[in-house]
Amino acid sequence: MNRIIDITELALRDAHQSLIATRLGIDDMIPACEDLDNAGFWSLECWGGATYDACIRFLNEDPWVRLRTFKSLMPKTPLQMLLRGQNLLGYRHYQDEVVDRFVQKSAENGIDVFRLFDALNDLRNLERSVKAVKKVGKHAQGAISYTVSPIHTTQAYLDQAKRLVEMGCDSICIKDMAALIKPQAAYELVRGIKEYCGEQTRVQLHVHATTGVTMVSLMKAVEAGVDGVDTAVSSMSLGPGHNPTESFVEMLDHTGNATRIDLGRMLRVKEHFSKILPRYREFLSTVTGVETEIFRSQIPGGMLSNMESQLKQQGAADRMHEVLDEIPVVRKDTGYVPLVTPTSQIVGTQAVLNTLMGRYKVLTGEFADLMLGYYGAAPGELNPEVVEMARRHAKKEPINVRPADLLEPEWGKLRAAALPLEGCDGSDEDVLTYALFPQVAPKFFASRHEGPRNVGKDPATGASETNIPEGHPGKIT
Amino acid sequence: MNRIIDITELALRDAHQSLIATRLGIDDMIPACEDLDNAGFWSLECWGGATYDACIRFLNEDPWVRLRTFKSLMPKTPLQMLLRGQNLLGYRHYQDEVVDRFVQKSAENGIDVFRLFDALNDLRNLERSVKAVKKVGKHAQGAISYTVSPIHTTQAYLDQAKRLVEMGCDSICIKDMAALIKPQAAYELVRGIKEYCGEQTRVQLHVHATTGVTMVSLMKAVEAGVDGVDTAVSSMSLGPGHNPTESFVEMLDHTGNATRIDLGRMLRVKEHFSKILPRYREFLSTVTGVETEIFRSQIPGGMLSNMESQLKQQGAADRMHEVLDEIPVVRKDTGYVPLVTPTSQIVGTQAVLNTLMGRYKVLTGEFADLMLGYYGAAPGELNPEVVEMARRHAKKEPINVRPADLLEPEWGKLRAAALPLEGCDGSDEDVLTYALFPQVAPKFFASRHEGPRNVGKDPATGASETNIPEGHPGKIT
Ligand SMILES: [Co+2]
Ligand SMILES: [Co+2]
Repeated sequence: MNRIIDITELALRDAHQSLIATRLGIDDMIPACEDLDNAGFWSLECWGGATYDACIRFLNEDPWVRLRTFKSLMPKTPLQMLLRGQNLLGYRHYQDEVVDRFVQKSAENGIDVFRLFDALNDLRNLERSVKAVKKVGKHAQGAISYTVSPIHTTQAYLDQAKRLVEMGCDSICIKDMAALIKPQAAYELVRGIKEYCGEQTRVQLHVHATTGVTMVSLMKAVEAGVDGVDTAVSSMSLGPGHNPTESFVEMLDHTGNATRIDLGRMLRVKEHFSKILPRYREFLSTVTGVETEIFRSQIPGGMLSNMESQLKQQGAADRMHEVLDEIPVVRKDTGYVPLVTPTSQIVGTQAVLNTLMGRYKVLTGEFADLMLGYYGAAPGELNPEVVEMARRHAKKEPINVRPADLLEPEWGKLRAAALPLEGCDGSDEDVLTYALFPQVAPKFFASRHEGPRNVGKDPATGASETNIPEGHPGKIT
Repeated sequence: MNRIIDITELALRDAHQSLIATRLGIDDMIPACEDLDNAGFWSLECWGGATYDACIRFLNEDPWVRLRTFKSLMPKTPLQMLLRGQNLLGYRHYQDEVVDRFVQKSAENGIDVFRLFDALNDLRNLERSVKAVKKVGKHAQGAISYTVSPIHTTQAYLDQAKRLVEMGCDSICIKDMAALIKPQAAYELVRGIKEYCGEQTRVQLHVHATTGVTMVSLMKAVEAGVDGVDTAVSSMSLGPGHNPTESFVEMLDHTGNATRIDLGRMLRVKEHFSKILPRYREFLSTVTGVETEIFRSQIPGGMLSNMESQLKQQGAADRMHEVLDEIPVVRKDTGYVPLVTPTSQIVGTQAVLNTLMGRYKVLTGEFADLMLGYYGAAPGELNPEVVEMARRHAKKEPINVRPADLLEPEWGKLRAAALPLEGCDGSDEDVLTYALFPQVAPKFFASRHEGPRNVGKDPATGASETNIPEGHPGKIT
């Protein structure tokens, strides 16, 4: 009897977020939904992360309609989202009532599994969202943002896992966004969680493929007893994305493990996306191969090209190597924060400034906030001199409380500000859109009636498909 | 104490053969040589396979000069070549004296490690070349062409490995050109050879990356005690190529195994080839991602696009799926030959013909020869009805002897035919060039004085670099 390994398919969220800057339009996903829903996945990640932002900013697409479309087309398989704890899908902390309402509406519209993470692994930033998910009776998966540093010992992660279980999480996710987890480390961490939190603790491993080692880490995780893994259909895999689903299925042959995946269905999904992807060529990540330098810089692929363009704007394109040397210094001063949204941007930008202007001669507001505790508690010790600089720069005192505890109730104010906007339909969903992206939401509400915009282009002619057919399920009618 | 795993770097031969149709010019390889030679490899594969053919056919480059250039630039690390046993680097069997002379000249010009294989795993086709290599005091690596079929049991491979050792091979290579070897199979085969042939038997694993599982197979081979593996620098890896060298080095962390590779050197090699590769875009394999369908068709990536163009020429591009279904039938009738040069082409073309014209209504001459034993003994039982059809078609009787035993001494004749050719310098090397490629050699001899032609193009302007600078080590002076 083979042990069954569950798979979460990432094609509809993280895969296109990583490979084509989250630009995949709903009409290019719909044709794959029936096969995906019947292919035997434990869950289908299809919402959250950067997709909400991309929907309203670039695709004139209502993210809530997208979610309901998915739910209607994929009724059999649990739908999964990625949620940044108290940040939800935005870039600040929200007051608890907003968190509750967001989770409730996400569940109502179709989300079954909530993967919850905090960039600093400050679990106080996850408490409220875990509670909210449990209150609506859905699966709360608590994620550990994986990084490598002198203070991120296996035992530190095991303690975090145990606290996530105690907080009520239904499963634990090891979330390795930069592809840093090597095979032996994956084995020890999975085995460790099982032994420390109990064998019944459900463990899922999320890895990207960028460094070229993580397919092996998945195998070692399987040997260590992992319950589920994340992969993406082969035509939407590798580079800054993930390991290929079909290869994962095949590699388990004769190992005593197996999956429930129907490879015939996946061949159709693969062929669909391999036809679609060339239309998004202009958004394709410049990182397409394997980048083992990430083991030193820890900067994920996407962030690297970000910093390159910052340097270019300053006429200092040749100083990338200095920036890569500065990043570990800055990261140490922050108490070794994991580098994931938003900390990867904050640390990366500060390293660029340090290189160009002299170390900490100029601080960004975000970096000061990070040093002063406004994103939460750092994993390790902060450099007190840099904290002092941040205090003087930002003219704010450091905080020790959970950042959201400083917030006044805000739902009423958000609602009052959203409702008068042209095109706002008065729903809680629209208020949430405004709450998350107050700059973008007004424009989106006003143009929403025009329907989703597909930003793909014919690879031969360069022609855009500007009009989505009437009666299209992605169109608001 | 870590166990050391040896690595053979493939950048200079199999990597560019797999990724850009063997088109890499010598002047694009030279800048990487010093770093490659000092990076700590067990050997550098840089010659043989299709490179000899590509040199004289496309690059106006003397393959022997290329080899001497490599030897002068990389004096520290053993240089390795791939040799198709009694076929040498051509497409027919050669009489034993030609084999002896080819091996002797290869050794004289710089080859230290000879990897010897036969497409049918008929070891009679390797006997002479193994002897020739031992006679010149070089390393003879006997390769098993890996395939999957009902008759290719682990025991059958173990028997082959033992016979290779008995023939005098210094090491055994498991050569998996289609990326078919799954992790557990790799473990069992490596462990099996060690146990069956003795732990001192040196085992090397050569895998391609096409199916997305073989990086894991490399890890399982390490766990099973493999001595060496083949990888390619990351910027020349994946797709129909190989697993990335740097990732292999990194993934061994904390496993009790390590390599001698200098990653600083490899970063420079990586950056060099990532700059060079876009110039060869027009030759880039259309297979760039992961193709797990190979587990069923067993057709390597390169062959697939070959058959697609055959079908297109016949206006039957839509019948690819039928051809893929026909291949296993044809392969069974041939006694389950491994699909590697030249059997992959022979079986693939026959499957196309069967699909278009009806099964075995038309036979190619090569397919008839294969059925009649003119390539050697098949691994399994031939379909006697198809053998009879081949006999009638080719008007030849089946043979049981080693094919080369039917050949008359031919060196004198080859020499007599080569010497009068315009531009032939009378050397044994030139006679061998003529012997291997009698159609192409005359043109090459005549134009050789013009020097190597780089077929890369500026990716922005499309401009060719037609003139290699004077005094260039790749230029014959
Ligand atoms: Co991710
Ligand atoms: Co190969």
